[in-house]
Amino acid sequence: MITAPGAFPSHEYAARLGNAQAQMAKRGLAALLLSRPADITYFSGFLTRFWQSPTRPWFLILPAAGKKPVAVIPSIGAALMARTWVEDIRDWAAPDLRDDGVGLLGETLTEIAGEDGRVATPMGAQSHLRMPLSNWDRLRGTTPHLTYVGDGGLVDHLRMIKSKPEISRIRAACEIAGRAFARVPEIAGAGVPLDRVFRRFQMLCLEEGADWVAYLAGGAGPAGYGDVISPADATPLQAGDVLMLDTGVVKQGYFCDFDRNFSIGPPSDAVQSAHARLIEAARAGFDTARPGATAAALFQAMSRVVSTAATWGNRNPGRFGHGLGSELTEGLSLMPGDETVLQPGMVLTLEPLLDLPDGRIMVHEENIVIREHGAEYLSQPASPEMVVLNG
Amino acid sequence: MITAPGAFPSHEYAARLGNAQAQMAKRGLAALLLSRPADITYFSGFLTRFWQSPTRPWFLILPAAGKKPVAVIPSIGAALMARTWVEDIRDWAAPDLRDDGVGLLGETLTEIAGEDGRVATPMGAQSHLRMPLSNWDRLRGTTPHLTYVGDGGLVDHLRMIKSKPEISRIRAACEIAGRAFARVPEIAGAGVPLDRVFRRFQMLCLEEGADWVAYLAGGAGPAGYGDVISPADATPLQAGDVLMLDTGVVKQGYFCDFDRNFSIGPPSDAVQSAHARLIEAARAGFDTARPGATAAALFQAMSRVVSTAATWGNRNPGRFGHGLGSELTEGLSLMPGDETVLQPGMVLTLEPLLDLPDGRIMVHEENIVIREHGAEYLSQPASPEMVVLNG
Repeated sequence: MITAPGAFPSHEYAARLGNAQAQMAKRGLAALLLSRPADITYFSGFLTRFWQSPTRPWFLILPAAGKKPVAVIPSIGAALMARTWVEDIRDWAAPDLRDDGVGLLGETLTEIAGEDGRVATPMGAQSHLRMPLSNWDRLRGTTPHLTYVGDGGLVDHLRMIKSKPEISRIRAACEIAGRAFARVPEIAGAGVPLDRVFRRFQMLCLEEGADWVAYLAGGAGPAGYGDVISPADATPLQAGDVLMLDTGVVKQGYFCDFDRNFSIGPPSDAVQSAHARLIEAARAGFDTARPGATAAALFQAMSRVVSTAATWGNRNPGRFGHGLGSELTEGLSLMPGDETVLQPGMVLTLEPLLDLPDGRIMVHEENIVIREHGAEYLSQPASPEMVVLNG
Repeated sequence: MITAPGAFPSHEYAARLGNAQAQMAKRGLAALLLSRPADITYFSGFLTRFWQSPTRPWFLILPAAGKKPVAVIPSIGAALMARTWVEDIRDWAAPDLRDDGVGLLGETLTEIAGEDGRVATPMGAQSHLRMPLSNWDRLRGTTPHLTYVGDGGLVDHLRMIKSKPEISRIRAACEIAGRAFARVPEIAGAGVPLDRVFRRFQMLCLEEGADWVAYLAGGAGPAGYGDVISPADATPLQAGDVLMLDTGVVKQGYFCDFDRNFSIGPPSDAVQSAHARLIEAARAGFDTARPGATAAALFQAMSRVVSTAATWGNRNPGRFGHGLGSELTEGLSLMPGDETVLQPGMVLTLEPLLDLPDGRIMVHEENIVIREHGAEYLSQPASPEMVVLNG
C-alpha cells in the first residue's frame, strides 16, 4: 500500500514506467539509470526535501520490461521508499568512505541489464549526473561489460506530457501563488524594504497553502529593474518604483512559476504602456499555443509584440518561456531553434521581456497547459493595468 | 564596488582565493574549474536562488596565481555577477541548443591554463559536476592539450574552515530557527495536522528573519517517528505523539541545521528518558569537540551514550553529524573512519540517533563551532526535559 506523502496511486507510476519501457525497447536499452531527484520522484513517488543535502547519491533503475523500478539508495531513505510503489529496495549505509554505493549499483545494473546490456542515463541539455565523477568512472571501470549511453532525451520527453493529476497539482500551485499575489498590497508599498517584502510574500504563499516556497526572486527600481535573479536587499521601495516578484511555490511536488509587476504609486505612462505591451505579448503567445505549434513559433509571436529580440543586451534570458512541472524549469524552451512540437498535456510558462532605457527591463510571466484545441491558463492572467501599491 | 546582495567585502574573497591558489601551486594546478553553486558563490559572492533552475550550467575558473576568478556564465546572470568582486565576466545567451557555453569555457580554460596545463575540478565524495555529461565529454574533446584531474578535496577543505563573518551568518541562522522553535507552542498541539504545522513553522522562521526556508523535514508518531526525511501528511497530532521538526533556514547564504523534539501532552517516562539520553549524547560530542580531536572521536563519544551504533537498522543515517555552512550538509562526517582533524573555525552539527521499539527512532541535533580551546554552541542547546505541547 502506498502511504508516502504526496505519492500518486500506483497506476500513475505504472503508466509512466510503461511509457519509458516502450521507448527503451525501441532504442534497445536494457536499463535506464536515474540520479536526478526529479527523475527518481517521477518514477517512484519518493518525495522529500532531503535532496537539499548534497552528500549522498541516490539511484533508481528502470528495467527494460515487465518489472518495476529498483531503488539503490542510502539507508536513511529506505523507510520512506518502502512506502512508495517500489518493492525492490537495496540500501547502503551512506556516506561510506570506501564504497559509497558504487559496488551495489554495479551489481544491480549487471543483474538487471545482463552481461552485455546497454544502460542509458540522461546526458544531454539541462541534465547532470548527481554522483561524484570519480565514482562514475569507477562504476564504468567495474562494469566493463555494460555499455553506458545517453538517454537521448527520453526521460525529459516523457516528463513533458503531464497527466491529469499532475496538471491539477500545478494548477493548485498556481492558485496558491495567485492568492498570495492578490494580497501583495497588504505587505508592500513605499518605505517597505525589499527584503521585508520578500519575507512577507513567502509567508503569504505558505498561508495560502504552499508546501514550501522553492523560489522567489524579483527586483524593484524606478521605471523597471536591473535583473530578475537577484536576492533582495534592504532598499526601501519608493514612489515610482516598479516591483516585480517571481515565485515558484511547490504543492505536492509540483511547481508554479510566474511573476507579477506592481507600481509603487501611480505608474508613469511609459511604465503602464510597457506593462500593457508585456501582457499583450504573453497573450500573443497564448493565442499561438496549440497542438502542432512549435516552441519557436510561440517565441516569435511574443517577440513580434515586444520587438526587442534583436537588441537583447547582457541581460539576455535566452528564451521567452519554458516547460514547467516537478522542476521550476524543465523541457522545452520558447526560443529560436527549439522546434519541439506542442502536444496536449504540456505545461509551459510564457515569459516575455521588454528592454527599457538605462539598462532596465520588465518581464511578465503566465503559466498555461496545452489542450486539444488550444491553450488554457493555469495562472489567472494579469490585467494590462498595473496594480498600484501605496506610494 | 561590490553591491551584490549578501556579498562580503572583497578582502574576504581575496583571502579565500589566496588560500586556494596556495594549494593549487603545491599541486601544480593551472586552473580550478567550479560548477557547483556553493563553490561559485564561495569564491565570487554571487548569491541567487536562481540555481533552483537546473537548465543552465554556470562556471567559475580560478587561475593559478595573481589573478581574480573568471566567470563563464549565462547572460541572464551577467548583471548580478558584475556587482560582485569578479571583473572578468564572459557570458553567453543560454540556453544555446548548439553550444551551451562549452566553446566559451574551453577557450577560457585554454587562455588561463596555457597550452598544457592541469585543470582540477571537484570529483570526490559529495561532489557532482553541474553540467551535462555530454558537454563534459565535448569539453575534454575540444581541449585535448589540457589535463583534467580531481581537486583532491581542495575546495571542500577550504570551505570547512569558516571565517568570522561566515560564523556570524551561521549563528544568525541558528538564532532565527531558535526563536521559531520557541514559538512552536503557538502553532502545534493535539488535533493540528502535521502539514499545517510544517507550513506554520516555515512562516515563523520567515517572521523571525529567515531569508528563506531551504529545508524542513520531521516526523510525528506515538513515542517516536519512522524516519527523518519525509514530508508532512495531513495526519493530526495526538496526545502521546513525539513531534520532531528539523530545519535549515538560510540567512545571507548560510544555513543552520538543527532539530527539536516536542511531546504532545506529557511524555511517557520512556520518551522523556530517550530524549534526555539524546541530549546527553550531543553533550558528550560537544565535550569532545576541540582542535586535534577527530570527526570519528566525536561519533564514538556520542555512540557510547546512545549505544545503538551496532544495531542501526534500515534507518541508518550513516553518521552522527556533519559539516555545515553554505550548504545544509558539507565537509566532514561524524562517523567511524572519518579521521578529519578538527580545527578552529569548523562548524558542525551533532546529531545522535536513538533506536526505539517498533522501528521508531528519535534524533536530536545541535550546531557548534570549533574554537581554540573547545567548542561553542551556535544553537542554544536544548534542555533534557521535553517541551510539552497542548495534548
